[in-house]
Amino acid sequence: MTQDLQKLAARVVAREPNAVARAISIVEDRRASMEPTIVSLLRELGGATDPLRAQRIGITGPPGVGKSSLVSALARAARSSNRTVGVLAVDPSSPRSGGALLGDRARIEIDPDDSGFFVRSMASGGALGGLARAAGAAIDVLGAAYDVVLVETTGVGQSETDVEHVADTVLMVIQPASGDVLQFLKAGIIEIPDVFAVNKGDLGAPAERALTELSAALATAHAGTGRGIPPMVLTSATTRAGIPELLSALDQHRAELVAADKLSDRRIRAISSWALRLFRERWGEQGVEDSGGQQALLSLIEKKIRDGATAVEAVSEIKPR
Amino acid sequence: MTQDLQKLAARVVAREPNAVARAISIVEDRRASMEPTIVSLLRELGGATDPLRAQRIGITGPPGVGKSSLVSALARAARSSNRTVGVLAVDPSSPRSGGALLGDRARIEIDPDDSGFFVRSMASGGALGGLARAAGAAIDVLGAAYDVVLVETTGVGQSETDVEHVADTVLMVIQPASGDVLQFLKAGIIEIPDVFAVNKGDLGAPAERALTELSAALATAHAGTGRGIPPMVLTSATTRAGIPELLSALDQHRAELVAADKLSDRRIRAISSWALRLFRERWGEQGVEDSGGQQALLSLIEKKIRDGATAVEAVSEIKPR
Repeated sequence: MTQDLQKLAARVVAREPNAVARAISIVEDRRASMEPTIVSLLRELGGATDPLRAQRIGITGPPGVGKSSLVSALARAARSSNRTVGVLAVDPSSPRSGGALLGDRARIEIDPDDSGFFVRSMASGGALGGLARAAGAAIDVLGAAYDVVLVETTGVGQSETDVEHVADTVLMVIQPASGDVLQFLKAGIIEIPDVFAVNKGDLGAPAERALTELSAALATAHAGTGRGIPPMVLTSATTRAGIPELLSALDQHRAELVAADKLSDRRIRAISSWALRLFRERWGEQGVEDSGGQQALLSLIEKKIRDGATAVEAVSEIKPR
Repeated sequence: MTQDLQKLAARVVAREPNAVARAISIVEDRRASMEPTIVSLLRELGGATDPLRAQRIGITGPPGVGKSSLVSALARAARSSNRTVGVLAVDPSSPRSGGALLGDRARIEIDPDDSGFFVRSMASGGALGGLARAAGAAIDVLGAAYDVVLVETTGVGQSETDVEHVADTVLMVIQPASGDVLQFLKAGIIEIPDVFAVNKGDLGAPAERALTELSAALATAHAGTGRGIPPMVLTSATTRAGIPELLSALDQHRAELVAADKLSDRRIRAISSWALRLFRERWGEQGVEDSGGQQALLSLIEKKIRDGATAVEAVSEIKPR
């Protein structure tokens, strides 16, 4: 078994599409009996899942703004600068069927002969919204294989906070004349994204106006925080305008984190928050309380993550009471 | 203590605004030590929280479609037919501050001298999205005091499924030319609403087109289910056009449930699902597993609800293992 997992891990790192797909299916398996296997597989991928290896970009924004097309365009731009790209597209789940509606993802076009490009869809896991429990582990798998991991989520509120826990850089996509800016301001989530794209930039005047509104809103939200205003890029997935600039802004954000020696800290904090969420899903509020409360639990988790554990591993090692 | 709660309950039923506000604050208190008080208060309100008493309408839809204005207009329409109205407006939480952004709710205008109209805002409770844990109990409180309870939620995905657990009738609000219809179809949530409003109907041609798109989408979604296509109403909160028709459609849906003797069953199933969610938040997946799995747990909960327990009470009586 361990030998099989070692082989599988080696094939993942070699970017064999079947192996990557198989590894993600393993980490998606929710049965409690699978936990040791998942922990072992992620440990085998360990060197490769070095948090500092792959560049992890979370893409979020409300439905209908053209995130999928933008993800395709970004992926192609990264490929053309010779980087390999893995995409995790998190679909809203059907509350009735429980499954993701994969047909959607046909929009992310993929050249079947290009082993440097991999796309996987995942259901958001209705009950708790936002990112599925397995998404964090799937991103670890993709990060072991590809240079850039793009994680696309949909929604307002939950998905921004979730994606912040698994990405180095959060990109928010909005569209002109939609009232989005006002909604984000109200929801307080305008503080989260590191980069903004105003998509459908080919709309001209409304797009320019959206950019102005967004600048004003960001200036207000960031006033007195000592943080700079995040870059905003006008894009069009149709005409490809702004795509290279957007990719640069994303690369730039990560380069700044690295230069300031902050990437590792950000990862540790983010992975710890994610692990806390996994713990809460498994053991509930009562379990958090029985473990000495959220703060004590988070410190314990953070220590384990700092010592090299994955989120799944840290959670598997802690029992309430 | 019990006497105080009895007095408070009597004042809630008499629609004293201070008492209603106080009762909601009690059920919002998340400390474990408050649970017996919450259970007692809801039991005191028991006769009054008879599920068949108040009409419970859930209003959902994406950000920016004008839900708050529509809720105001509906509330005024119900008041003018001499019904009392309680509104619970669930705001997205700020993930950074954890609080709801109440300023928003200034948009629901209220006559301070009208004791037949009550508005309360509540944070959605970031971690789990959708409706806050306390929302179900707050709706029970409002249902003890007012003839009509309007519950406004925001979002795509989580909030539709949540509001289905606390409302007799689910109204979805969309706006023209937004791509909403396509998104709802993809998310499978187009099956949930009982009534649709296409708001901003004063937009003319785009509004008519949205109505046509929605009809087609609903015909597809409901094909072969044996269920009729839900009513769709073109509204404008600005001109008030369509508001009486919308209120009629909502009343009609409930009248049909009552006539078919289905309201009580719908409530029992809905409250049981809500209680299951409360149980899962408290005890986690492990707790559900240790209670014999989701199906066994739901049967146990449903039995308690059928015997007259509130959701909070049912959950407080069940311990895993």
